[in-house]
This record gives sequence, structure tokens and C-alpha cells, in this order.
Amino acid sequence: MGYVKWSYDTLNTFCHDVFRKFGFNEEETNIIKDVLLTADLYGIESHGMQRMVRYDKGIEKGTIHPDAKPEVVFETPVSAVIDGHDGMGQLISHFAMEKAIEKAKKTGVGFVSVRNSNHFGIAGYYAEMASKQGLLGMACTNSEAIMVPTFGRKAMLGSNPIAVAMPAEPYPFLFDCSTTVVTRGKLEMYNKMGKPLPQGWALGANGQESTDAPDVLANIVAKKGGGIMPLGGNKEVNGSHKGYGYGMLCEIFSSIFSMGVTSDKCCTFKDKTGICHGFAAIDPAIFGNADDIRAHFSEYLETLRQSPKAEGAEQIYTHGEKEVFAEKERRENGIPVNDNTMVELANLCNYLKVDFGSYFKGYELPKDSKFFSGNY
Amino acid sequence: MGYVKWSYDTLNTFCHDVFRKFGFNEEETNIIKDVLLTADLYGIESHGMQRMVRYDKGIEKGTIHPDAKPEVVFETPVSAVIDGHDGMGQLISHFAMEKAIEKAKKTGVGFVSVRNSNHFGIAGYYAEMASKQGLLGMACTNSEAIMVPTFGRKAMLGSNPIAVAMPAEPYPFLFDCSTTVVTRGKLEMYNKMGKPLPQGWALGANGQESTDAPDVLANIVAKKGGGIMPLGGNKEVNGSHKGYGYGMLCEIFSSIFSMGVTSDKCCTFKDKTGICHGFAAIDPAIFGNADDIRAHFSEYLETLRQSPKAEGAEQIYTHGEKEVFAEKERRENGIPVNDNTMVELANLCNYLKVDFGSYFKGYELPKDSKFFSGNY
Repeated sequence: MGYVKWSYDTLNTFCHDVFRKFGFNEEETNIIKDVLLTADLYGIESHGMQRMVRYDKGIEKGTIHPDAKPEVVFETPVSAVIDGHDGMGQLISHFAMEKAIEKAKKTGVGFVSVRNSNHFGIAGYYAEMASKQGLLGMACTNSEAIMVPTFGRKAMLGSNPIAVAMPAEPYPFLFDCSTTVVTRGKLEMYNKMGKPLPQGWALGANGQESTDAPDVLANIVAKKGGGIMPLGGNKEVNGSHKGYGYGMLCEIFSSIFSMGVTSDKCCTFKDKTGICHGFAAIDPAIFGNADDIRAHFSEYLETLRQSPKAEGAEQIYTHGEKEVFAEKERRENGIPVNDNTMVELANLCNYLKVDFGSYFKGYELPKDSKFFSGNY
Repeated sequence: MGYVKWSYDTLNTFCHDVFRKFGFNEEETNIIKDVLLTADLYGIESHGMQRMVRYDKGIEKGTIHPDAKPEVVFETPVSAVIDGHDGMGQLISHFAMEKAIEKAKKTGVGFVSVRNSNHFGIAGYYAEMASKQGLLGMACTNSEAIMVPTFGRKAMLGSNPIAVAMPAEPYPFLFDCSTTVVTRGKLEMYNKMGKPLPQGWALGANGQESTDAPDVLANIVAKKGGGIMPLGGNKEVNGSHKGYGYGMLCEIFSSIFSMGVTSDKCCTFKDKTGICHGFAAIDPAIFGNADDIRAHFSEYLETLRQSPKAEGAEQIYTHGEKEVFAEKERRENGIPVNDNTMVELANLCNYLKVDFGSYFKGYELPKDSKFFSGNY
């Protein structure tokens, strides 16, 4: 299967109309589609348009309650706990991060911990909500268990991404990474290509390293054991306990502080996923002159980018730089969407009674696709 | 060279008397020695007694100003910036963390960023100052550049450890790790053993992987390029950019927020190192009932420890558990001190006019040692 490119405007209109059809109001729709399309603009395909069908499935299965509204269940001038009541992760998270920002603007810091939410898309989106307002932003989420702790053989933590964004010139710092060595999407990619997994990624059901992508994925689905290694691999010699530790930090700010569901139990319920998030916003002005701090940081980032490169390396990046380049290129030349995703979207349109062809004019679905099968 | 074991009381008395001789008052002495000996009790030899001589060297060279007092140069109800005026790192850091705790007890959170300090020992000590009072504690520090950013060949970040401690039963969570894959001490250990470095640790002067310990260490000392890889190695496929990112987070909370010296410039001055730290304390009560949160966290930690083990693995640890076991064992059976360190301490005693033999009765210095050479 190949890729087809669509303009940002095309995808924006399409996403808008689809989420309106799901029953979300205009404001809610705009939030959800902005989170998704930002991932596509940043080149993070796994968290963009291709997720639309998964959200649809969640709504159908009853783990996502589209009408639920987030509720503040505990609050102080510097913090809040939000119960998402199993609504759309993007809406709960946008609400939570706005609360963190509001508090940071008043007191200097805002910490918000969220329970009973759902998949929220890219963590970096929420961190950037803060950095766009001159603040340091942090966002993290737990998820269905996929990370096997050091010396274990059962997945007990999620991919547990942590994102931190901080204003800088000429573009912000944006660190957004899972605390596993890779995400499940990467394993699926190797599986599709029929290639063995790289060393240091995954564990078989017995807790030993495995490069057998189909076997590892089958075990994950069947919850037979194994999963993905923490950042640092599965041995202390390369720092496995460190990745496992960062995964724990994510868990503390999401499921622990909110008294929510820990990753080992996420997605084991019929009527909810239980996914939890953590958000924080910190005003650099609590440390002095925010402009001076921003300039000091920008200078260090530039020094890093200009530092001597390894033999054969083309560029030293600072975090978030690739996303800036990707967005510029994709806004100019279009966003590539996988044919598989196009098929899924066509099926979704059929289900929602949306005219697929009116958005994607001239596009022909692959002949072997399961269009109209309803089986998505 | 071998190891000799001494009781905690013996080392405690010795350290006390030595730091008093350096001119530190009783209160200061107790802080410094407690930071050092906690490292030895925890089994982190690299940051314990064997560091005494390095502090002495710093005082002699003039990069540590023993009389300097930390000064609060900026403050809000939730934050402070401290100028350490190049004093002892432990004293500045203890002062800074106490301030963070004081603020957290009043407002719920306290962030303190420190500039112009010196090596502060183990980051975990300060994080635990908070967790011992029921708070989540965070401590981090930058250092002389040793981490080569992804695709680089020059060290631009320090080992940049981040420590987080959080109360739990039956023992606290304590995560304390460098954001490099390993610390320089580990490279030195392999060098002493004459063994090649493990894969995924170090880079040669050209920025390519090297397992040649003497060459890597010589290049680091001569600042010819190369250094240690970030957690995740030197390739994106295993998450190099993630370790580099965590190193950046440490830099933001230490050198950036304090407007201090970034790691690329640390330890390049005659009269200071410029080392910066970051500290935070967060009261779990800002998220609800602190006892409930503690119980929820303790339960998750226990679930992790009891989860199925990899084939051949003996135990799944939670962070800080090894330190608890090490402390118990060492308080009962003594703390092992390397003969090399004993020789250094003997020289230090000679310099300070302290009677080495009166503390370490019956100990004979190795015959080939440089005792009394003054060359330490």
C-alpha cells in the first residue's frame, strides 16, 4: 500500500465534518481535530488521522462516552484533580491543560491530574498549549500496559509518554517521547514489512528478548506475557531501570495523584479504559525575568545545534525542531495518508453517512480493500 | 587493591572530624558528612567517602569557596532562585531543598533553582529530604560536560542526574539516575579492570562508538571530543534522543531557570565550577487525601514487585528498594572502602594534621601506596 497526499485544508474540513457527525459540538470538534491534525503535521502519523477509526470503535464499544463532561473533583490554587467520566481524551485533556495554565498565570504553577479519561492523542499538543503562552508545559499519560519492568515478563506500565515544551527562539523546545524504547506502532510497522525487530526493543512471553514481530504482537494482544522494553532495554547495564523509572514518574502524575487506574489495569474494563493523564504549567517568571530566561535557553539550544557533529552525521537537532520542519513541509506540500487509513476512513464515512468522495475527489480506493464491508 | 570494611560509626566520626578541620562549623559538617555517608550506605561508592579528596582539591584549587553562604536572589511564594556563590554544593543544596520544602508546606509546591554551586553528591539525598516529610521531592544537577548529544561528537551536557522520591510503604520510591547511559565512574572502573567497555556506552573523538576505555577517558580529560552516550545510546532507533531530552529537562530546571552556567561551560573556569541544581517539592495533599494517595501508590509498587519475572530473573525491584537493602546490610556489617580511597584519606589526614591511625586502628596501608607523598 502506498501513500496519498492531501492538503491540510482538505483533511481539516473532513475531520471537522466527521466529528460533527459523531455529535460533538463545534467547539469540541475543533479541539479534537486540531489534536489529531497537529500529529499529522508533525509527522507523527500513528497519532493522527489513522486514529479516527479507533475513536469511533471506542464510542461504539462504550469505552468512550462522547457526552461526558470533565468534572473538577478537587482543587487548590496550584492544582486540580479532574474526573473525565470516560469522555473523549482530547476534550478532557484540553480542559485540564487550560486549568493548569490558568492556575500558572495566577500563582506561577498549575498541576492537574486526570482520572477516567481516554486516549488523548499526542502528549506534546497539551505541553505546547502552555509553551504557546510563554509557560513551560508538561503532559503525560498512562495507557494499556505494554512496558515490561526490568527483570519482568508481564507488561505492567503503559508506553507512558512524557512531553515537556518550553518557549525558545527561533522555535520552541518540545520533548515528547514514550518511556518505552519504542511504541507499539513501530512493532506493527516491522510486522507489516515482514522484518525482524531491531535488538533491544521487545520481549517474548518468557521475558527474554525477541525479534519475532508477529509472535510478540500476538502475545501482547492475547496478554500472554512479553511486551516492549523500557527506554534503556531490558538490562541494567544499558539503563533499563532508568526507562522503567521515567515510566513510573508518568504513572505518579497521572494515575497515582488522581487516584485513578494504573496502567496494569487500564483497558481491562467493558465500559471504560480508565486512562489517566498528568498536566503541569510553570511560569518561568517565577524564576526571574522570563525574557532573559528565554534568551538564555535559546542561546544554549543554538550552541547545541552548532556543536561538532559525529562523522557521517548531517545535523544535531534540538527537540521539537523536526516537528517544525515537518509542519512547514506538510503545510506546503500536503500530508501523506496511508491507503489503509483511506480505506478505514471510507468505511467510517459509510457508517456515518458522510460523502467520502466529496472530500477526496479523484481518489480511488485500492481494489483489494474492504470498503463497505463494515468490518473496521 | 581490595576493600576494607568499617562501621558506620567509625566513618561518621572520621568524616565529622575531617570536615571540622576544613573549617566547617558543626551544623555544616553534619550536613556534608550525611550526604556523603548516605551514598556509602546506599552502595553508591562513587559518591561517598571516595569523594572527600575531590572536595579537598576543589577547596585548594579555589573552585570551592568554603566560607561562601547561599543567597536567595529571587523569590515568590512557590519558588526561589539561589546564588551559591561557589560554596560547598551540599550546603547550598541542603539550604535550597529546605526552602523548597518550606514553600511546599505553605503553598503546596516549591521550586528552587540554584546557580554557582559545586558538586552536591547524590541527587537522591535531597529528593529524600522531601519524601521524609511526606512530599514528592525532585533534585537534579548539571555538571562538567560528558554527554554527547545525538549525532554529535562533543560532550555538551553533563551526566545530568534527575532524582525523584515519593513516600510509600514499606519503603519510599527513590529514582536517582544520570540521564547518560552510565556515569564516568563506570568507565573508570572498566579502565582499571583493563576490560573493553560494553556496547552502547561511549563515543570516541570522532563521535563513533568506542569500547576503548583508556582512549575514551583520555579524550574526555583532554577535551578532544567523544564522551558518554545519552540513555538510549547514540542512535534514534534505541531512543538516544530520549536520554538527550531528559538531560535537557535537567538543564532547564538547573542552569536555565537560574540563569546559571550550562553544562557545556561548567568546570572551565579558574575560580568556580558554575554547577547548577534544580529542586522541587510537591505536597500530594494538593491532589486530595495524601494517605489515600500513599496507599494507592504503595499498592501499585507491590503489584510491580509481585509481577511475573523473566526466565532466570530473581527479583523485580521498585526504585529505591536496593538502597534500602544496602543500607540495612551496611549498617549491620560495615561499609566497604577501597584501599585506594584509604590511601587518599591517609594523605588527606596528613595534610590536615588529623591522626589517621586513631580512626582506622589496625589498618595497614598497601605497601606500594603513595602515602605521605603529598601527591593526591
